Amino acid sequence: MMSRRISKAIQIGGVTVGGNAPIVVQSMTKTDTRDVMLTISQINELEEYGCELVRVAVPDAEAAGAISAIKKGISLPLIADIHFDYRLALAALDAGADGLRLNPGNIGEPEKVKAVVKAAKERNIPIRIGVNAGSLPETTKAGLTIAQRMTEAALEQVKLLESLDFGLIKVSLKAFDVPTTIEAYQDIAGKIPYPLHIGITETGLPRKGVIRSAVGIGTLLYLGIGDTIRVSLTAHPKEEVIAAYEILKSLNLRQHGPVLVSCPSCGRAEVDIVKLAEAVEDRLVKIGKPIKVAVMGCVVNGPGEARDADVGIACGKGKAVLFKKGKEIGVVAEKDFLSALWREVENLVS
Amino acid sequence: MMSRRISKAIQIGGVTVGGNAPIVVQSMTKTDTRDVMLTISQINELEEYGCELVRVAVPDAEAAGAISAIKKGISLPLIADIHFDYRLALAALDAGADGLRLNPGNIGEPEKVKAVVKAAKERNIPIRIGVNAGSLPETTKAGLTIAQRMTEAALEQVKLLESLDFGLIKVSLKAFDVPTTIEAYQDIAGKIPYPLHIGITETGLPRKGVIRSAVGIGTLLYLGIGDTIRVSLTAHPKEEVIAAYEILKSLNLRQHGPVLVSCPSCGRAEVDIVKLAEAVEDRLVKIGKPIKVAVMGCVVNGPGEARDADVGIACGKGKAVLFKKGKEIGVVAEKDFLSALWREVENLVS
Repeated sequence: MMSRRISKAIQIGGVTVGGNAPIVVQSMTKTDTRDVMLTISQINELEEYGCELVRVAVPDAEAAGAISAIKKGISLPLIADIHFDYRLALAALDAGADGLRLNPGNIGEPEKVKAVVKAAKERNIPIRIGVNAGSLPETTKAGLTIAQRMTEAALEQVKLLESLDFGLIKVSLKAFDVPTTIEAYQDIAGKIPYPLHIGITETGLPRKGVIRSAVGIGTLLYLGIGDTIRVSLTAHPKEEVIAAYEILKSLNLRQHGPVLVSCPSCGRAEVDIVKLAEAVEDRLVKIGKPIKVAVMGCVVNGPGEARDADVGIACGKGKAVLFKKGKEIGVVAEKDFLSALWREVENLVS
Repeated sequence: MMSRRISKAIQIGGVTVGGNAPIVVQSMTKTDTRDVMLTISQINELEEYGCELVRVAVPDAEAAGAISAIKKGISLPLIADIHFDYRLALAALDAGADGLRLNPGNIGEPEKVKAVVKAAKERNIPIRIGVNAGSLPETTKAGLTIAQRMTEAALEQVKLLESLDFGLIKVSLKAFDVPTTIEAYQDIAGKIPYPLHIGITETGLPRKGVIRSAVGIGTLLYLGIGDTIRVSLTAHPKEEVIAAYEILKSLNLRQHGPVLVSCPSCGRAEVDIVKLAEAVEDRLVKIGKPIKVAVMGCVVNGPGEARDADVGIACGKGKAVLFKKGKEIGVVAEKDFLSALWREVENLVS
């Protein structure tokens, strides 16, 4: 992996984003923000799944006002998502938001942004400049690619904030198109010192959306870019958090619960590996610790992968070899595959 | 994206792998290869999903012999997966396999490999040198990383094949660990001219496995590496093919059926976007053409993304704006969101 781009760290309600801090997982509520109880409930559910920062939409004054009541029921830092009307940003700050997200494509004239920056500065509240390919501001320059227009829009706002002596900045540049998104982030990464919030926007339903998100976010992280991530899925936001951790775990950037290594099965397998792996995964859901478990169907890669896991099973015809922390610890009969494996997992995590 | 590493193209049963050819999607059957009818049925199902090369496990002589009967019932090129016993490779060639995969970790002495290479050369059949981190051969060198051991194992076999004047080579270097896999492929990419088969091995059940695979395969493709891909999932192999195309589509490397852009929804949405997007995706399953459809929940990115799609809808309170090929074509009431959008999709694809 390329070494991580070191950005200037900022604090959002006690959570560090940037610098050498762990890459932060965030999501966004899908409730009506004005429905305080429902929004609190969704935020607290997201926290259980490991969400570390949460964003809420602020489409009107009532939603902005609801933030103070929501804050009383949650412990996650809350970021207010603002479009079109800078006065909603001011109201969200008054209501106690820990961060703001502004869209340069629709927030309007510099005077309005200045008013927001002044209020944010007084409260030490960071602002994310959140550019989306779907809502780019007009440009007078001809011939720019979408990625260049995204970067240009962000840089213009960054300069405005810097001119007001405001440095609590985070930037995002999201598109549905993965190469466009990566190009934009790579471009801006060398031009500003601020942390980057990365994501691929509007990737659709989970089945395909997690793949598009993983390709885009994963590649950026591999290139050393990204301080906080959000996976945007048309689904309950807990799916976004689960997917975010899987992306981070696959690059060894975060630990978060168990990891299951299981072979795809093939004509060589003499046991139903899909069924066994599903049973193990079902049980692993309840394990919070970062344990690595391997379920393997034959002697080709079975012993190697099982040995490499904390607990592993390499299955053959009617029997399997059990491994723990790299050592063979016994041979078990087919009826005991799941129970024997599970006994060792429980021994390790208890 | 980095420009693609140009490899020496090879032919596998009429399918070109490498050079400037499209990146080929492959999978592997999970049936007992000796069950000819079941294996034929699974291969033909995989072809319907877009699979372009298929591999079958050859664990014994009966499986090797079954290849000739299987070949009669399929049109996809078939690759025989060989471990431990070089005689199975010879039998698979006799039975008409279009390609071989050998594992340097368990195929044994050079003399055995030489016998296989001689038979493959006579028939013009390519051989994949398929290294897995879980089944590495012993090494006498100390201090090598896993990635280095993988590369070393592959290079040793490549040299052996080259010394026999055999050049129909493809190489893979798979591990469960994504950074290890990428490191190994990056290392070998500059050292040999042959096409690379890429994948992350044993990534588990689909929900998490597609994410790990997308990060690993996606990053490699972004770096210009990879001529054919296989997603290894503990699931029906059609899931592997579906995931493979989503990875390729997200980098604009292949077109394959429709693309749905849909927003994650948030407190700003005034319509149930998840439900609408799911209904659209359900219908899109039947569309074979590469049409881009956008389902958006509000006026922030809605009009921009809807305009960018072939057909798009940007929903507001009780009504939505419909877009087709970048042009606004009408306003529709909430009860007609799905039917109006779908009418335009059908007009475009019919």
